[in-house]
Amino acid sequence: MKDRVKGPAILGDRGSILVEGIRHRGRTVDVFVDGGGRIAALGGDAGKRFRRDAATRIDGKGLLLVPGLVNTHTHAAMTLLRGYADDMPLQDWLTTKIWPLEAHLAGGDVFAGTELACLEMIRSGTVAFNDMYFFMEEAARAAAGMGLRATLSYGFIDLGDPEKREKEMKATGRFVSFVKGMGNPLIRAAVGPHAPYTVSPEALRWCADLAREEGIGIHVHLAETEQEVRDCLAAHGKRPAAHLDACGCLTEQTVAAHCCWLDRDECALLAARGTSASHNPTSNMKLAVNRAMPYPWMKEAGVNVTLGTDGCASNNSLDMFGAMKDAAILQKFAWNTQTTLPAPEALHMATAAGARALGIPSGRIEPGAPADLVLVNLRSPSLTPLFSEESNLVYSATGSSVDTVICDGRILMHHGEIPGEEEILARAAEAATSLVSRAGI
Amino acid sequence: MKDRVKGPAILGDRGSILVEGIRHRGRTVDVFVDGGGRIAALGGDAGKRFRRDAATRIDGKGLLLVPGLVNTHTHAAMTLLRGYADDMPLQDWLTTKIWPLEAHLAGGDVFAGTELACLEMIRSGTVAFNDMYFFMEEAARAAAGMGLRATLSYGFIDLGDPEKREKEMKATGRFVSFVKGMGNPLIRAAVGPHAPYTVSPEALRWCADLAREEGIGIHVHLAETEQEVRDCLAAHGKRPAAHLDACGCLTEQTVAAHCCWLDRDECALLAARGTSASHNPTSNMKLAVNRAMPYPWMKEAGVNVTLGTDGCASNNSLDMFGAMKDAAILQKFAWNTQTTLPAPEALHMATAAGARALGIPSGRIEPGAPADLVLVNLRSPSLTPLFSEESNLVYSATGSSVDTVICDGRILMHHGEIPGEEEILARAAEAATSLVSRAGI
Repeated sequence: MKDRVKGPAILGDRGSILVEGIRHRGRTVDVFVDGGGRIAALGGDAGKRFRRDAATRIDGKGLLLVPGLVNTHTHAAMTLLRGYADDMPLQDWLTTKIWPLEAHLAGGDVFAGTELACLEMIRSGTVAFNDMYFFMEEAARAAAGMGLRATLSYGFIDLGDPEKREKEMKATGRFVSFVKGMGNPLIRAAVGPHAPYTVSPEALRWCADLAREEGIGIHVHLAETEQEVRDCLAAHGKRPAAHLDACGCLTEQTVAAHCCWLDRDECALLAARGTSASHNPTSNMKLAVNRAMPYPWMKEAGVNVTLGTDGCASNNSLDMFGAMKDAAILQKFAWNTQTTLPAPEALHMATAAGARALGIPSGRIEPGAPADLVLVNLRSPSLTPLFSEESNLVYSATGSSVDTVICDGRILMHHGEIPGEEEILARAAEAATSLVSRAGI
Repeated sequence: MKDRVKGPAILGDRGSILVEGIRHRGRTVDVFVDGGGRIAALGGDAGKRFRRDAATRIDGKGLLLVPGLVNTHTHAAMTLLRGYADDMPLQDWLTTKIWPLEAHLAGGDVFAGTELACLEMIRSGTVAFNDMYFFMEEAARAAAGMGLRATLSYGFIDLGDPEKREKEMKATGRFVSFVKGMGNPLIRAAVGPHAPYTVSPEALRWCADLAREEGIGIHVHLAETEQEVRDCLAAHGKRPAAHLDACGCLTEQTVAAHCCWLDRDECALLAARGTSASHNPTSNMKLAVNRAMPYPWMKEAGVNVTLGTDGCASNNSLDMFGAMKDAAILQKFAWNTQTTLPAPEALHMATAAGARALGIPSGRIEPGAPADLVLVNLRSPSLTPLFSEESNLVYSATGSSVDTVICDGRILMHHGEIPGEEEILARAAEAATSLVSRAGI
């Protein structure tokens, strides 16, 4: 059977989709997605019932059906800085390379970089991401144009300066209003206090209030380094999670990125508040933060643990398959047991747990759920044999194993094809070159 | 320009090859490979000079030319066990899963598993590998048929039992003779004493003598776990490297895999003997060996450090791009500095250092060298922008970034196509299922 595609997929109107004969949890099933973007039927007979109705039919033979992946911590536009500076001491890297480049960033760069990030995420099976950066209106436009789900936050940094605080409050409020004005259900705003060490307690409280008033999430870096813990204790007499909590920033809609240096009490605090953690194993290793996120303590406490890639300056990839594997092997290494973070838990972190953290309906494949689906190509040496779907997905697959991606019922990549890819690559490469040239470094 | 391919590539006769307009170390070059499999010309004008002579022409636009990768430690046929059992305590895993399956292995399984491994290695840019397993005649046939360079050793394990020792000596001798009889310059034998804790001192000395007499290499596991160090001290009064050395097993043609628990003196000993280390970061993390190979000590001592994936039961992938990234980030994490094992060093480990360890002429791209070449597809979001070839190769690429692979002047994969791939996948999947069924577990 040859796939039959009627009309353009990407960001056109949704049409119904029938995936026939695809492997899912050890069975062969058909999946029918209705014109409203929801999974209308899942099972052995959906093909027969809906074949006539389907605008697009996809032959699922040799493919595996998995939920779309959710990346809960990144700085999408930093794709433009990929490979620009690596393997440097952290302070040198930030002060002589990253910050000087970022000082020359313009809105158009963030648009181009975010588009590139979306392209990379689609290629590697990610359907939703949690982003924090600057010029976020441009990021929102890019994500919306690419058809992904995005929770976007303006990175609020006041460094205790009241004047800067005013500016950041305005920028944050403006961005939240902008996203409301877009009226795109896939694009959501969050409040983005950068970190306990870059944002004053006054500003943290303001961010918490705004998030509560608007009913939106909070995206914050937390306890990435030991220095942050020491500084927080010195400045506020509390460890970072307790300090964030005192400022009202640990909510059920908060995603705390990194969490490497939390102690057991802080893990219990996150669990008590319903706050989600975003584990970023690849970035944590590359930047040598000297401690793996305490996954066993979090699991014990009942924290919703999710997975992120971090930005491309510190990974340098947005491939969530890589993040799953790195999480599973780093936790084993760090805790000195072969059983920590088994493959099914890594997959859960990257799908259902991530969706729960962002309050989005991804991460499950069942009738009534939105069609956020990834079709993985099983006909490859690296996925042969197939004893365990989870083991192969986590330990053997990479983003390149992804064949087709459907988000909210729209086909974003179809058998490896993404409309407009060449133009996006060219635009991003040009933006990156121009940025470095303008920065003169 | 459309690629023009005359006749079959894989394992047919070699024909000359011209790659035109490919990126290499920041320049755009043409590469001409003569009918003898050697790089005859490299530079801006090779295209003009050799266009008429080339049996095959490859358009290098959008591709990056890198040396073929060398995997210095694997158990190739263990692809059949990929994903069969993961995330288990080490002893349970070995005694209830891996060893019972291996007890039912037959020669045909090793052939099918090694073919699958070669397929996966070709797809991910590896042109040479160092293998240790059983039924190695079958592994040799498979590797030869796939056109890869292979250094193969029968895994010698006597556990101090003189009767078993006799058997292993015969098996080793038989295999060395078999490989000589093949007369295939790409296929080489090595002596494979499994590890200091599984091979008696008498047998280690016998292995060293045989390797010296035959002028071939030694492939051995060394200091993978702390337990091994303790046991070796208790049994022999020496740490493992010193013990191997006392038995004559540390030679210039020895590859010692893992080396996680070596101390500084042992690193210096490896350097003094000219012995190569094979770092297997992914396996070491997944199996929680509790210590990263001491790369900084090895570098300081001047050890030739190379890279391996280990077998698919403990990784579960043969992708050397994954191994490069894991090495670079694990070493940073373990040594708590962002500067340890920068990208160019990881790439060197996976290419020139690996070739040196195996005594093969891969790892360099220059006129006169054999054409062991990998063409990486740069037209992908994960490799955009391209500020640094090394950073993108190590931190952003995966095996799937590889477009074309040439080994000893033969095109093994051409724009992602490998002749006979479907049959190899089917044969391996069938062998894996049958193995588990025969083992009855």
